[in-house]
Amino acid sequence: MSVIYDRVALIGLGLIAGSMSLAMRRDGLAGEIVGTARSAETRRVAAEIGLVDRVVETAGEAVTGADLVVLAVPVGAMSAVAEAIGPYLKPGATVTDVGSVKKAVIDAVGPHIPDGVHFVPAHPLAGTEHSGPHSGFAELFANRWCLIVPDGSRAEEAAIARLEALWQGMGALTDRMEADHHDLVLSVTSHVPHLIAYTMVGVADDLGRVTDSEVIKYSAAGFRDFTRIAASDPTMWRDVFLTNREAVLDILGRFTEELFALQRAIRTGEGQELHDYFTRTRAIRRGILEAGQDTDAPDFGRAASRRGAAE
Amino acid sequence: MSVIYDRVALIGLGLIAGSMSLAMRRDGLAGEIVGTARSAETRRVAAEIGLVDRVVETAGEAVTGADLVVLAVPVGAMSAVAEAIGPYLKPGATVTDVGSVKKAVIDAVGPHIPDGVHFVPAHPLAGTEHSGPHSGFAELFANRWCLIVPDGSRAEEAAIARLEALWQGMGALTDRMEADHHDLVLSVTSHVPHLIAYTMVGVADDLGRVTDSEVIKYSAAGFRDFTRIAASDPTMWRDVFLTNREAVLDILGRFTEELFALQRAIRTGEGQELHDYFTRTRAIRRGILEAGQDTDAPDFGRAASRRGAAE
Repeated sequence: MSVIYDRVALIGLGLIAGSMSLAMRRDGLAGEIVGTARSAETRRVAAEIGLVDRVVETAGEAVTGADLVVLAVPVGAMSAVAEAIGPYLKPGATVTDVGSVKKAVIDAVGPHIPDGVHFVPAHPLAGTEHSGPHSGFAELFANRWCLIVPDGSRAEEAAIARLEALWQGMGALTDRMEADHHDLVLSVTSHVPHLIAYTMVGVADDLGRVTDSEVIKYSAAGFRDFTRIAASDPTMWRDVFLTNREAVLDILGRFTEELFALQRAIRTGEGQELHDYFTRTRAIRRGILEAGQDTDAPDFGRAASRRGAAE
Repeated sequence: MSVIYDRVALIGLGLIAGSMSLAMRRDGLAGEIVGTARSAETRRVAAEIGLVDRVVETAGEAVTGADLVVLAVPVGAMSAVAEAIGPYLKPGATVTDVGSVKKAVIDAVGPHIPDGVHFVPAHPLAGTEHSGPHSGFAELFANRWCLIVPDGSRAEEAAIARLEALWQGMGALTDRMEADHHDLVLSVTSHVPHLIAYTMVGVADDLGRVTDSEVIKYSAAGFRDFTRIAASDPTMWRDVFLTNREAVLDILGRFTEELFALQRAIRTGEGQELHDYFTRTRAIRRGILEAGQDTDAPDFGRAASRRGAAE
């Protein structure tokens, strides 16, 4: 493929930015990739492993002359970073982000983007429970969706299409969505599931009569798959819940309502009601398999485990 | 390996029994494997694919002359099956089960086991979201725990040790546990996680403002891993919740208590409390990786997906 941006600046060098750098390099999508991070240790590691072409100390330095600036920091840090880079942005450049919440990011970043710079919020729906400069890998975005949220931004259509071409070049599928709708959809598909998984791990950890060692040994009975996401980055998730509060509380309310109905069915022995509910939920899970967003292999990642062991 | 039981009877021919048959055959652990299932269609498929050595029409016929009888039916069906086979059991034979709840199974099966027959309840902690005679595979139990629950049974130590040898021969690790404790541990590591996953899928399906298609497309953001277990067999799970009611309601109560505390922290903007909670829950998840009950590969099953696509 050919170069889409001559110079890309990555602000933050964690899982997403690291994977973007490796994916852009693999496919020759960027002329030069400059990166920075707030932590000196992260910058040191990134330089040592050659994660980007050039590591610099400040965000202002990183964005100078950049054609694309990617804000890959926790949502709560977006405003300060945007304020810091505002004066250094090149006219005609595009600023994007990879935050898990979009309305809060638009409110935080938008005011700091000068006229003549395109701001195109985005959110790649890909991740693992790992974080830090070591955690990225070029295949992270393959066959995953990246949602582009152009509303509330001041961006020309050509700038939006160019960013979409970059994501497609890295292997992702792209869709456009309004910010409010994005935040609601993600509260269902991501934010509330994460909160619930964190909670269940906390319950297991608190329980005096069942030891952590028992929970860990016997996790293959469901806990393992259910709570895989509960090891994700605490700072990122704190910011998600604080900035997408309204949608998260809305979905949580519906969740507890339904959970109480099932709890009551268990207490009163309504077997038919439970059976009907469990039968209905199968269909949506099977849809995920059919849509290619999951594997039908009956091994729950055991093949991945063997691969991991062989490496 | 050498033959541990000359004749094994499998009552029920779903995921667990099918995987046992394939694992015993692979390792030469059983002389002859006889199987039966209530549904004529299941018996037909099992015979067609050669899942066991001989398919018979009734449970009584299956257990006649068997050295080991495995009850691999939903927990709610155990009592009727035990009653049906009681008169046909060979003196000195061992009866075991693979049910996800142990106290209810002991109460249901125990009274039907004649003197001179060993009853050794067991529970292999392995499964996928698939069911039926096609779903088994020989590697299902590799490196997974099988809990042996000898209390409440009338079994000689030699019979218990022999069943443990069978499970170890099929690749499993074995532990012994009391029935009440088993039911509590499993309510934490399996039963409540399944109920919560089913509930979250139900919420997603009910939500008018977010379509099923959106939930499915954007599931990689967390929903996919979190709800993988929500496609498991509805009959099995109905029975689990009806028969392990007390422990499930106990753990559910603790879960909602903790969830409400986090919900309140979100509503009031207590970022530090959220961050502390999420940091603490990371440790237990990482323990699961270290205990070899999960993979550290950062691909969330993508390698498995490629394997599946290549088949």
